[in-house]
Amino acid sequence: MPGATAQTIRPFLWRASKLFPDREIVSRTAEGIRRSTYAEYEGRVAQLAGALEDAGIERGDRVATFCWNHDRHFETYFAIPSMGAQLHTINPLLPDHHIQYIVENAQDKIVFVDPSLAPKLEGAFDEGAFESVEQFVMMASEVPETGLEPVTDYETFVSDFDTEYDWPDLPEDQPAGMCYTSGTTGEPKGVEYTQQMMWAHTMATLPEAGLDIRSDDVIMPVVPMFHVNAWGLPFSCTAAGAKHVYPGPSPTPEDLAHLIEEEGVTMTAGVPTVWLGLLDYLDENDADISSLERIVIGGSAAPKSVIKRFDQEYDVEVVHAWGMTEMSPVGTIAHLKPGMEDLPLDEQYEKRGKQGLMVPGLEMRVVDDDGNEVPWNGEDFGELWVRGPWVTTEYFKRPDANEEDYVENWLKTGDVVTVDAEGYVKIVDRAKDVIKSGGEWISSLELENTLMGHDDVSEATVIGVPHERWQERPVAFIVPQAGADEDALKSDLVELVRAEFPKWWTPDEVVFIDEVPKTATGKFDKKVLRDQYDDSSLIEGKTPDEAAPDDD
Amino acid sequence: MPGATAQTIRPFLWRASKLFPDREIVSRTAEGIRRSTYAEYEGRVAQLAGALEDAGIERGDRVATFCWNHDRHFETYFAIPSMGAQLHTINPLLPDHHIQYIVENAQDKIVFVDPSLAPKLEGAFDEGAFESVEQFVMMASEVPETGLEPVTDYETFVSDFDTEYDWPDLPEDQPAGMCYTSGTTGEPKGVEYTQQMMWAHTMATLPEAGLDIRSDDVIMPVVPMFHVNAWGLPFSCTAAGAKHVYPGPSPTPEDLAHLIEEEGVTMTAGVPTVWLGLLDYLDENDADISSLERIVIGGSAAPKSVIKRFDQEYDVEVVHAWGMTEMSPVGTIAHLKPGMEDLPLDEQYEKRGKQGLMVPGLEMRVVDDDGNEVPWNGEDFGELWVRGPWVTTEYFKRPDANEEDYVENWLKTGDVVTVDAEGYVKIVDRAKDVIKSGGEWISSLELENTLMGHDDVSEATVIGVPHERWQERPVAFIVPQAGADEDALKSDLVELVRAEFPKWWTPDEVVFIDEVPKTATGKFDKKVLRDQYDDSSLIEGKTPDEAAPDDD
Repeated sequence: MPGATAQTIRPFLWRASKLFPDREIVSRTAEGIRRSTYAEYEGRVAQLAGALEDAGIERGDRVATFCWNHDRHFETYFAIPSMGAQLHTINPLLPDHHIQYIVENAQDKIVFVDPSLAPKLEGAFDEGAFESVEQFVMMASEVPETGLEPVTDYETFVSDFDTEYDWPDLPEDQPAGMCYTSGTTGEPKGVEYTQQMMWAHTMATLPEAGLDIRSDDVIMPVVPMFHVNAWGLPFSCTAAGAKHVYPGPSPTPEDLAHLIEEEGVTMTAGVPTVWLGLLDYLDENDADISSLERIVIGGSAAPKSVIKRFDQEYDVEVVHAWGMTEMSPVGTIAHLKPGMEDLPLDEQYEKRGKQGLMVPGLEMRVVDDDGNEVPWNGEDFGELWVRGPWVTTEYFKRPDANEEDYVENWLKTGDVVTVDAEGYVKIVDRAKDVIKSGGEWISSLELENTLMGHDDVSEATVIGVPHERWQERPVAFIVPQAGADEDALKSDLVELVRAEFPKWWTPDEVVFIDEVPKTATGKFDKKVLRDQYDDSSLIEGKTPDEAAPDDD
Repeated sequence: MPGATAQTIRPFLWRASKLFPDREIVSRTAEGIRRSTYAEYEGRVAQLAGALEDAGIERGDRVATFCWNHDRHFETYFAIPSMGAQLHTINPLLPDHHIQYIVENAQDKIVFVDPSLAPKLEGAFDEGAFESVEQFVMMASEVPETGLEPVTDYETFVSDFDTEYDWPDLPEDQPAGMCYTSGTTGEPKGVEYTQQMMWAHTMATLPEAGLDIRSDDVIMPVVPMFHVNAWGLPFSCTAAGAKHVYPGPSPTPEDLAHLIEEEGVTMTAGVPTVWLGLLDYLDENDADISSLERIVIGGSAAPKSVIKRFDQEYDVEVVHAWGMTEMSPVGTIAHLKPGMEDLPLDEQYEKRGKQGLMVPGLEMRVVDDDGNEVPWNGEDFGELWVRGPWVTTEYFKRPDANEEDYVENWLKTGDVVTVDAEGYVKIVDRAKDVIKSGGEWISSLELENTLMGHDDVSEATVIGVPHERWQERPVAFIVPQAGADEDALKSDLVELVRAEFPKWWTPDEVVFIDEVPKTATGKFDKKVLRDQYDDSSLIEGKTPDEAAPDDD
């Protein structure tokens, strides 16, 4: 059978350490900046692999991290997968019972823990929890007071081992990484990345159609390394031979501005709130961020105002991207196409505010309830399905979830989108939140965004309630600002919606409440509202404006 | 087992036709420029797949092309592999008996032939040849006078079929491409590319560390599409959504200059002689090639003068690349590293004249006769070994060649190289031509380049002849210019070598001959000379300058 050698990530490390030995890896710590190079990094990674082997880690074992973004965490990124084990990054922001479940489910044998996160991990400990864990390693040069045991510090853990390691030749389907995705309902679902998937994702992020990562880049991942491997940036950055800058635990906007200025950061990445914070800081303080060329924003939609401000005030391009844990994570990126740079600025921001274009290697379908593809007209809704060489085809030990989320290797993303004539994807809702009325779909998210725009609205959420004729009809739940006149507000809100959307999108009822129910992580919990209003009593006798779509 | 969907090239076609439907595919023909778009291309590719299926082509069958660079040839690039068959591009410049051997060895079922190449293929026909071929398809809208049969024309072949095709989901180890590499000795060796290898090679060429291919590029492959799939450019260009420009049969420098100017070509690629021709043309004629940003030069070493002239006179970057048929083909690329743009221009050209840096995903070793890695000091010689996800691990039906050319999945490239401290590879000789003297290696190629520099030398070649004490010693064979004084020339040449190389590199004898023996394709055939001088009679009694390396 013809073929080639396996796709594994180790050659990226080989290339960086041999071709870019002096490029730096910079890490912000409580004691200041710590610097090393790819040449030193390669030796440290070998030492760590030696230490893991000595600690009994074998091929296929899972090794967890419970850490912020720093150089030692980055050492685990290559050492664990390249010795044949599986890097499992745990999100320390999860509730305790999820952390317990995850460690138990993954059967992690060793956990690397940041000193600042040790209390959180201890707090999650309970009788019988963490039974699989044979060893905790504190990410420090000494062990602080802790109840975790047995425990050693990282420097002691690795110090006895050689700076060369006899790396195995791994098969490409070797599980190499693992993250859990937090469902809003049920237990977190384990997502595994093989060597091949990590390789393919890395290669896909490098070109212009991806994140355009170059050897002269200086890349600072602000997105946590426990969020889908910091969107894969530590791997991509290494493959390109770029300089790494890790912002350490809990960086403030001031820390980020200083790192950009002092290290010459050219590219950074994180969720929108981080960049809102940076803009606020820059408004009040002098900082030279002129080295910065682009910010990758993902996790949730980038406000157009942020895209515009960075462009106009700082000449920084906001690169809007979308992905999922199940996608390693990169799926779409909102680059402009050739020629679009001549469009009016507002239209450019409009395109760049969408989720964007599928990167090379992936395929997508956008399907309605009957499984038919919807037209690419920027208006018709459908659920986004994706597949490709870095999209998972199953969850870890969860056949129930597989059945729900996959159709013949297509991942049902759970996102409801439109696609415009140029192929730009725009998320309009989550599939479970979209309201199905008269055979057409209404975006709860777009209605909420409009309702939240009213000054007297503190929180707004919209759900579909069952309707005999129209299947579902929208009902808005509003937390008014203190002192608002509810009657006036109600008619204002109806007008607001009518002005922007087809008539049949108008909520049949506006209900004032004291608070929107929230999940453990602070997101709106529409499930609680849906359970409460799972009959049509709320809208009984109401005559909707026009509950079926018309032509306007 | 965790995993993702297979790596196949079809999603690149999907992406180009859906996201860049209006980007053009331009082809120079005898009747002028023919234009189409990715949207049209997708339909044509589907029609061709339908026609192939109808003609009885099944998964795994081999379908050959015998064509120059044009749009119809490009249609075979996606149609044949994506329906599950294997695209076999035949080099029409090969001698007849190699063409016969190749078609027989590959068992090609259909051959697509350019009308202008049909006489060559007919000429290669012999009693009993081409038995596997069921059908010839002439790349035209009508069939010219030909002895090939049965034969149809391309447009008739595809016209009855639908512009949509129900593409199969292929496994990633499905053989998808095939090229033969012409050994200087023995029969050509078949090299097979799987879907996965083509996918990986395409992804590897896209980033800055590769060929930096972007959606706004306009790419003209001058390298023939029968030379390792035009270095993979038709696939890479599609994955990026760039515009294609195919120069058609036998383009002159004038044709190339016009295409660059009229189509706005940003990147082109080919062997050095093409660009020497273009420079000569530009010297004598007005042509605006200002759209051109870079020229990828491979196949043989780019003269530094070419790199310099394009840079200084036309602001065009020459991107020197090296690869092999067995490597799909891209291996190294001579990009400058960050900071090197501050070096003196001559040093920059020096770096860019080397074969360059391994692209991400590959690994290399440079080994001496004992299999030990040689230091990266720009001086020590060793044979280059490579491996990676787009490097083959075997030849088609040639276990004998496998044993010779592979060591545990490492491809022994047969190239002797130095690697400098920055990791730039430089080819100094072919392994079979390097002269082994006193345990050290002498580059025949470097000696020849120096000898050829003398005005009175018309041709020069250097071989190693057996030597009792030193194993081998160099002997130079010189074809002098008419009227040269041989005695004076001989002592000139010895001086020339002594001035540039260690003393022990000096040839023990300089032999004047009328002509250097040549192979069928016009290359120097050192084997003939080596067979003639396989004893030490030529240098018997000679005392070499100093036949072992000293410290100078």
